[in-house]
Amino acid sequence: MKRYRNGELWEFEGEVPVPGAAGGVILGVDGGTTSTVCVCLAASSNYPDGIDGGGGSLPDPLPVLARAVAGCSNHNSVGEFAARETLEAVMADALSKSGYNRFSVRAVCLAVSGVNHPTDQQRIRGWLRDIFPSHVKVFVENDAVAALASGTMGKLHGCVLIAGTGTIAYGYTKDGREARAAGAGPILGDWGSGYGIAAQALTAVVRAHDGRGPETTLTRNILHELELASADELIGIPFFPLMDLHPDFLTPTKSGIELWTYEDPSWARIAALVPVVVATADSGDAVANKILHNSVLELAASVKAVVQRLGLCGKDGKSYFPLVMVGGVLEANKSWDIGKEVINCIIKDFPGAHPIRPKVEPAVGAALLAWNSITREDNGGLSMS
Amino acid sequence: MKRYRNGELWEFEGEVPVPGAAGGVILGVDGGTTSTVCVCLAASSNYPDGIDGGGGSLPDPLPVLARAVAGCSNHNSVGEFAARETLEAVMADALSKSGYNRFSVRAVCLAVSGVNHPTDQQRIRGWLRDIFPSHVKVFVENDAVAALASGTMGKLHGCVLIAGTGTIAYGYTKDGREARAAGAGPILGDWGSGYGIAAQALTAVVRAHDGRGPETTLTRNILHELELASADELIGIPFFPLMDLHPDFLTPTKSGIELWTYEDPSWARIAALVPVVVATADSGDAVANKILHNSVLELAASVKAVVQRLGLCGKDGKSYFPLVMVGGVLEANKSWDIGKEVINCIIKDFPGAHPIRPKVEPAVGAALLAWNSITREDNGGLSMS
Repeated sequence: MKRYRNGELWEFEGEVPVPGAAGGVILGVDGGTTSTVCVCLAASSNYPDGIDGGGGSLPDPLPVLARAVAGCSNHNSVGEFAARETLEAVMADALSKSGYNRFSVRAVCLAVSGVNHPTDQQRIRGWLRDIFPSHVKVFVENDAVAALASGTMGKLHGCVLIAGTGTIAYGYTKDGREARAAGAGPILGDWGSGYGIAAQALTAVVRAHDGRGPETTLTRNILHELELASADELIGIPFFPLMDLHPDFLTPTKSGIELWTYEDPSWARIAALVPVVVATADSGDAVANKILHNSVLELAASVKAVVQRLGLCGKDGKSYFPLVMVGGVLEANKSWDIGKEVINCIIKDFPGAHPIRPKVEPAVGAALLAWNSITREDNGGLSMS
Repeated sequence: MKRYRNGELWEFEGEVPVPGAAGGVILGVDGGTTSTVCVCLAASSNYPDGIDGGGGSLPDPLPVLARAVAGCSNHNSVGEFAARETLEAVMADALSKSGYNRFSVRAVCLAVSGVNHPTDQQRIRGWLRDIFPSHVKVFVENDAVAALASGTMGKLHGCVLIAGTGTIAYGYTKDGREARAAGAGPILGDWGSGYGIAAQALTAVVRAHDGRGPETTLTRNILHELELASADELIGIPFFPLMDLHPDFLTPTKSGIELWTYEDPSWARIAALVPVVVATADSGDAVANKILHNSVLELAASVKAVVQRLGLCGKDGKSYFPLVMVGGVLEANKSWDIGKEVINCIIKDFPGAHPIRPKVEPAVGAALLAWNSITREDNGGLSMS
């Protein structure tokens, strides 16, 4: 097997790598902008009956042999070289902790944020080919796929709604079609996201302050949270420069808009105000309640758009499909439970929606995707790769 | 006179500065994030009758002796040291071009973006004191004040609505009270701004694309303008990382939020799409029309909030007040004229509003503010400083 330029990462394997356990292992990687997680799962295809899996039965608890964590592996954030280093290091770390080596690996599933085009997938598959022996099956997906799989235990079917700092709805049909809605980022109207909710709350505070909007207890609660004395401090610099529309700025490059839209940690800092908005709505504030109601409609609209485009609900609109719910916004509940309201709103239109809050993390979802795929292959089904 | 550390800037004055013209000159500076402009105005208080001025009569055309341009002088953007250098250099340049020197200067008015608190004013007044002889009157304001003065020819009374990349409404009463509305920036809901209009248009394109919103010709027109093949390219990276709400991010510092909110030139790049939205509305597109109608209501609401808080419209709600309209959004008109619609909307509530589109630039407005003030002083009135 090729040692690639990071040979030292693999020194734990010794001079002559020993073959691994009978069933081998599977690596699942969830690579995000804040951190990258790799789990190593025992890959026996002879599991006794257990929790319901996609392609067969899965043991409960799952045989997670090791877990490793590293930093950002979004190639759009840190560049291709650093992303590749991080991904290789986190996989080596997980394998080393599990006591196995690269010959024991049956499959790897990398679910990485920023992987959107077939060319991204192709390139990253190439990296994995450089690292692992040729018998290893490799799968490359984006991280929404791992989130779906973490709820469906590896089955690629249904819709996942992610609502953390940002939000996106992603859907898959059994015959391999996919669609998504929202997920375009803060400037492109993801109003149901944590960022969107908090930005609307901050806006309400400013409008109450300058006389354009109604009074709200969001003012007191948000200023308290941010340790500010007045809404003026929230605003700071009071206005844009007296800038006309400069024709010079008329040609945003693709990468320019992308980078600017997604890479700033301030978005998460704004989104962190969501619990304050929820608590304020809980105490009866009309403005906060309206913001949360709007966010419920927005989040439900994303799911409905995906379900409708893919026909996930069947011809009668009532067919069963898994609806996986992931992210802080859907969990930041007091008596006001955004996730529950979103589900209610979706089920009214699609009574076959089956809501699932995942019990395992996305890296395990990625490993299960690979496990599911090789099990189907063992059983004569189709491969994903 | 102190030569300060930038002595070389003032070498044109020679060893012994010669006294200037009889009436002296006035410097007006408009300091923004994109550029800084300084004009040098002849300051005779014995002008013949001319265009209507604030404290007396002004000649038409105004006796602008010289004009100089430099880069950014917002101390929040480039730091205090660089801002100070830029301001001193642009004033030296204008004076040198005019053929006068610092002894000829009767007054300086610096209207700089980012000047919001009395402490900012105090500090910048200190810089000016280091540069100019002690007889020179110095005035420090923020750039909204210069925009108002550019419409009222130096009179501090009325309301100015600025709508370029950002938007703000600023108002002043004759007895010195002031108020503002909006101007809080892109995350705090300045939806009437150029940025706000364009962001709503981009959002409409994404919603039409993913099935959440109605079809709109904004899609074709915006993609054409940006030279993109599909709305997918607009989005680029499809979603935020699967980030929960991190409590670590819960403490935005004041300077953190400020810097991030206002300093990114991408805001102007987004706002540059306004003419496409206006043209699309002109051709009858319902979505584009709705966006522009909303922006009109938003801009009018800012003005109304200021007028109401200050009582600019008098007790009967019908008194005269100047309404100065500035910025690309209010001028980016085809048959759809945002500025005209805003005026119509305001006049319905406040029939005494007298709309003015300034004929001079804000730097001249700043100079007129100073001229007005020293003229009133000459006539026994109160000084601003």
